[in-house]
Amino acid sequence: MSTDPLVVFTPSGKRGRFPVGTPVLTAARQLGVDLDSVCGGRGICSKCQITPSYGEFPKHGLTARKGALSDWNSVEQRYDDKRGLASGRRLGCQATVQNDIVIDVPPESQVHRQVVRKAASARAMVMDPAVRPYYVEVAEPDMHTPTGDLERLAEALKDQWGIEKVEAGISVLRRLQHMLRKGKWTCTVVLHKNHDEDTHRILGIAPGYYDRPIYGVAIDLGSTTIAAHLTDLRTGEVATSSGIMNPQIRFGEDLMSRVSYSMMNPGGAVEMTDAVRTAINALIGTLTAEAGIVPQQIMELVFVCNPVMHHLLLGIDPVELGQAPFALATSKSVALHVADLDINSTNDAARVFVLPCIAGHVGADAAAVALSEAPGDQDDLTLIVDVGTNAEILLGNKTQVLACSSPTGPAFEGAQISSGQRAAPGAIERIEINPDTKEPRFQVIGCGLWSDEDGFEAAIATTGVTGICGSGIIEAVAEMRMAGLLDPKGLIGSPAQTGTTRCIEDGRTHSYVIYDGTADGGPLVTVTQGDIRAIQLAKSALYAGARLLMDEMGTDTVDRVVLAGAFGAHISPKHAMVLGMIPDVPLDRVTSAGNAAGTGARMALCSVAARASIEKTVREITKVETAIEPKFQEHFVNANAIPHATDPFTTLRSVTPLPDVSFNTGSGGDTTGGRRRRRRAS
Amino acid sequence: MSTDPLVVFTPSGKRGRFPVGTPVLTAARQLGVDLDSVCGGRGICSKCQITPSYGEFPKHGLTARKGALSDWNSVEQRYDDKRGLASGRRLGCQATVQNDIVIDVPPESQVHRQVVRKAASARAMVMDPAVRPYYVEVAEPDMHTPTGDLERLAEALKDQWGIEKVEAGISVLRRLQHMLRKGKWTCTVVLHKNHDEDTHRILGIAPGYYDRPIYGVAIDLGSTTIAAHLTDLRTGEVATSSGIMNPQIRFGEDLMSRVSYSMMNPGGAVEMTDAVRTAINALIGTLTAEAGIVPQQIMELVFVCNPVMHHLLLGIDPVELGQAPFALATSKSVALHVADLDINSTNDAARVFVLPCIAGHVGADAAAVALSEAPGDQDDLTLIVDVGTNAEILLGNKTQVLACSSPTGPAFEGAQISSGQRAAPGAIERIEINPDTKEPRFQVIGCGLWSDEDGFEAAIATTGVTGICGSGIIEAVAEMRMAGLLDPKGLIGSPAQTGTTRCIEDGRTHSYVIYDGTADGGPLVTVTQGDIRAIQLAKSALYAGARLLMDEMGTDTVDRVVLAGAFGAHISPKHAMVLGMIPDVPLDRVTSAGNAAGTGARMALCSVAARASIEKTVREITKVETAIEPKFQEHFVNANAIPHATDPFTTLRSVTPLPDVSFNTGSGGDTTGGRRRRRRAS
Repeated sequence: MSTDPLVVFTPSGKRGRFPVGTPVLTAARQLGVDLDSVCGGRGICSKCQITPSYGEFPKHGLTARKGALSDWNSVEQRYDDKRGLASGRRLGCQATVQNDIVIDVPPESQVHRQVVRKAASARAMVMDPAVRPYYVEVAEPDMHTPTGDLERLAEALKDQWGIEKVEAGISVLRRLQHMLRKGKWTCTVVLHKNHDEDTHRILGIAPGYYDRPIYGVAIDLGSTTIAAHLTDLRTGEVATSSGIMNPQIRFGEDLMSRVSYSMMNPGGAVEMTDAVRTAINALIGTLTAEAGIVPQQIMELVFVCNPVMHHLLLGIDPVELGQAPFALATSKSVALHVADLDINSTNDAARVFVLPCIAGHVGADAAAVALSEAPGDQDDLTLIVDVGTNAEILLGNKTQVLACSSPTGPAFEGAQISSGQRAAPGAIERIEINPDTKEPRFQVIGCGLWSDEDGFEAAIATTGVTGICGSGIIEAVAEMRMAGLLDPKGLIGSPAQTGTTRCIEDGRTHSYVIYDGTADGGPLVTVTQGDIRAIQLAKSALYAGARLLMDEMGTDTVDRVVLAGAFGAHISPKHAMVLGMIPDVPLDRVTSAGNAAGTGARMALCSVAARASIEKTVREITKVETAIEPKFQEHFVNANAIPHATDPFTTLRSVTPLPDVSFNTGSGGDTTGGRRRRRRAS
Repeated sequence: MSTDPLVVFTPSGKRGRFPVGTPVLTAARQLGVDLDSVCGGRGICSKCQITPSYGEFPKHGLTARKGALSDWNSVEQRYDDKRGLASGRRLGCQATVQNDIVIDVPPESQVHRQVVRKAASARAMVMDPAVRPYYVEVAEPDMHTPTGDLERLAEALKDQWGIEKVEAGISVLRRLQHMLRKGKWTCTVVLHKNHDEDTHRILGIAPGYYDRPIYGVAIDLGSTTIAAHLTDLRTGEVATSSGIMNPQIRFGEDLMSRVSYSMMNPGGAVEMTDAVRTAINALIGTLTAEAGIVPQQIMELVFVCNPVMHHLLLGIDPVELGQAPFALATSKSVALHVADLDINSTNDAARVFVLPCIAGHVGADAAAVALSEAPGDQDDLTLIVDVGTNAEILLGNKTQVLACSSPTGPAFEGAQISSGQRAAPGAIERIEINPDTKEPRFQVIGCGLWSDEDGFEAAIATTGVTGICGSGIIEAVAEMRMAGLLDPKGLIGSPAQTGTTRCIEDGRTHSYVIYDGTADGGPLVTVTQGDIRAIQLAKSALYAGARLLMDEMGTDTVDRVVLAGAFGAHISPKHAMVLGMIPDVPLDRVTSAGNAAGTGARMALCSVAARASIEKTVREITKVETAIEPKFQEHFVNANAIPHATDPFTTLRSVTPLPDVSFNTGSGGDTTGGRRRRRRAS
């Protein structure tokens, strides 16, 4: 009837007329407004809270007067007494429409509320988790129609929630009858359904209405560290994060040495699998303790990892990933039960979802980066490099997305560097070299001061200066190039050529002294010619991989560069570009995505739509195999120069001096030869 | 082209013209002829053997000449050398059509060959198992399209077998890469798919072509005994059968005492669950040893059982089945993994299928009987009684099928009978009483002679005469009635009333002496007045249940009676009818279905179509609850007389004398009172 009250919902703007007495929740459902409810409108769960707005609304063409909603009723009163209802709020299932009204659905009452991932990103995550609780009222058994309790529960889920198909494992079936009777034929079931399934799996059942929060854990399982984020599956909020070293390091620092360990030692793969699973259980235990929750509240784990870690986590021998054609056991996502992975630190019924690998060298971590950064949604041609022991490289825009991995080796992480060390207090992480005096100043991890500032010595008294970490070595080499201490071929000049005694003789080559602590029994921190060579190999591999993708795409330039990975967050864009790690773009077009893989894992944890999306994306990505592309070698050789032998880097040169020096005395090493192609590690 | 050779397949009669050179298997597939192949036409599996027929075939309108099929080729030669090909046989995938030909497909080459269940039955079982092996050739990995091994296997199954969707558990995924490489990119996978699933589950994988037979076990899990049939899942043939006592007997002989045990003893249900699972593992071990196979060959188990055993098997506390409204945890079939039931005597990947229960008192065993006997497919109105401690009763025809259970108690099994014992050597199982002399003669289990035949004493020397078993007591009571020793009310006459000293005083009642071994220290085997009362209670419950279903059906008569259950096979129809256990029908319309529940289990094991059928049937069956039907009591009272107080049994009387005696002296017990309604047991 056209004289029925008009109801307008905000922020959706959906509107319709409803008979007097219609509950707001009912009106919302009929209009397709996103208003949450776990109890199905029984005034129990309070998820359907709304805020009525009163007054003149010319925009909506209505005036909302007091009395436009029914009076506060006993259910709302009881809820308010027990838990407190914020001022102006009503329960959408209790308040009924009496007259024209504008109703605001606050974000926390939206099922599919958006969760902003991080300040730096415009993208948002829509909550659509695989695991959700549902409150239902189940019909009591009847001797005349003797259906089972499970069948009546399924019927209730169908009638009350539109859930077509459910299945229960044996452990749920064992508890079902007791729970239904204890809850006087009401219960809350926790259901799980993946993006590629049509059946909801009952993970848990509790009598009556049960609102203890449910959590999931997003796990970024790296070769060196394992990071985990305990996430509230209703809100998407991270309750707490924690990290742990990957105990597989004792079997080999890089992935290929772990594959070798597996090949050389019978049972070695099993040993590594056990080690990582034990660590994951410990890590989840830490999260549980930190958040003050119980393991039973954790209902799902989502993993992202490189292919070798993927296989070792699943207990699959990674031997095939160590040799061409680098065949994955499976290239789809993997859905499991926690017991399949010997995980005992969660709810017994909890599920596991492992993101798909892109190729034998391009892992689920890269897939997670693709999910988080969504290059396929960009108009700009975006290059994403996830810098680690292996670099995963994605290049794409709305037309096409390409992926490859490149074996950069551990130099970027401070390994194979003479004074290199892991990022830890005492490590030099930033450095500047005065181009006139050739004198350095630096910062060490754990201290906010520069080395030439007052109080620096006191501030570092406990840690000292112990070495140089990954971001430090990149800055050091780039600063040396900008200060004219290093020529484009990568040769360090002699004291005579550079005019500074900080360049010292070191056999037939030279080194640059950043810090001399030897007087106090401390280290001599230098950048040696060998360090430069190691960095050149690493950055050439990275750049060559990017160039190969650009070839495939038919372009010489990109619009944007995103540095991903925990390490990526610490790399200075200017220094990376001076080194020629990444193509020449304006510096403000180089951004850090932080731990994009971890973000992708969280997105997959919070959204089955994201799972479907990444599964599709992974299939569509064009995989480029650097190992078999002849042009890779050519790109690699050209990229050896700093910043590059043939690519002009004009944008960079317009803002940064790159002195045109040459220190070749005939005794310097061959800058293009001697390349030992590292065994691959993704 | 109409001049292409004509190919006629027998026995199907399907025919068509095919170009010269068409393989017979290809022709068969195009015509929809049921010709098996596991290797997909690669000359490996030999499942597609056919027999060409040569000569004049006026019926088919063709003449088949020598040379109508291609010559024996090297593949066939190799197969013949290795395994031998029967005379006249060809491999359908190798022999090609050259000219008009008639081709016979022998039964063993048909996928959906029928397996006749038993000589007595016209019905047949079509092989359609949930578990089947498939040979496939898998594409090798390719770095340019880096899909996983699992995805290429799935692709191969789709291309070569039309299988749309497969999933692999973690244990298959762990072995997949090694198996594919070992088999040089060929493998045999064992797939499983239930009737209500759309995904094939990979249970096992072996390199290359692998033809070790796959078995399933059909298990009839009874309260007293567990019977199991090891069945070849390609042929449906039973390799071996075995039985074992249900060890739960120590917790209570009948089901209700087990439910009580569970209610009275914390952990009692778990204890009983453990006991039965241990027994099942032992039983499967026996089958495996007897058949000379290895546990890994057993890929599926199918269970039928009453509701209490169903719940105890699954580890569900049966407490709800002990009290109204007798709610089942689930009334659908249950599909599980063997590990869910702690079964470790099969392939680790083996599956379990448990038939659905019909109601809280009418179990999956009754469902299996319904599957085996298919009352809903009959024009005749058929009454099926599965006689045991509880009787399951089905009544139906094409219009409708009804089911109930009735608490007969253990009297029919020789329990609660003064001289009663289990069916074992020494037990009287058959008995005749001369109506003139009132003298008995009998047979005991383990001896083929009647007691009045020469050599009987010698033949039973080792076993002796120890008591009377279930079928023996039924015959004894019926013979006493026919000989005029027992009146319709169930009173045994005095020596004076009956004229025989075999009727002896026994307190205020009388007993009939069948065998007096006391002189030699043996037993005095008698039928006491108390035994008669126990049999009356049992048979009244059975008849009342059948009558109740007949009421629901609106009929006073049935067309056929089927006695099912292991015990049913031993009951003599005439004696059962004299007792009034079953309604009055011509004796030749009473048949035994043997162990119909076990047959139903085998059918479900061999056919997913059978699973779908019984799931549907169970939903459609009208369930009648004897406990809440007021008419049950009335039927019970009327059924107390032998054969019956009100139903005339005219058909029976026309062939069998039922002397019209009466021994009521005023001191005899009340034949209708004193009925202690037994606690229910299904």
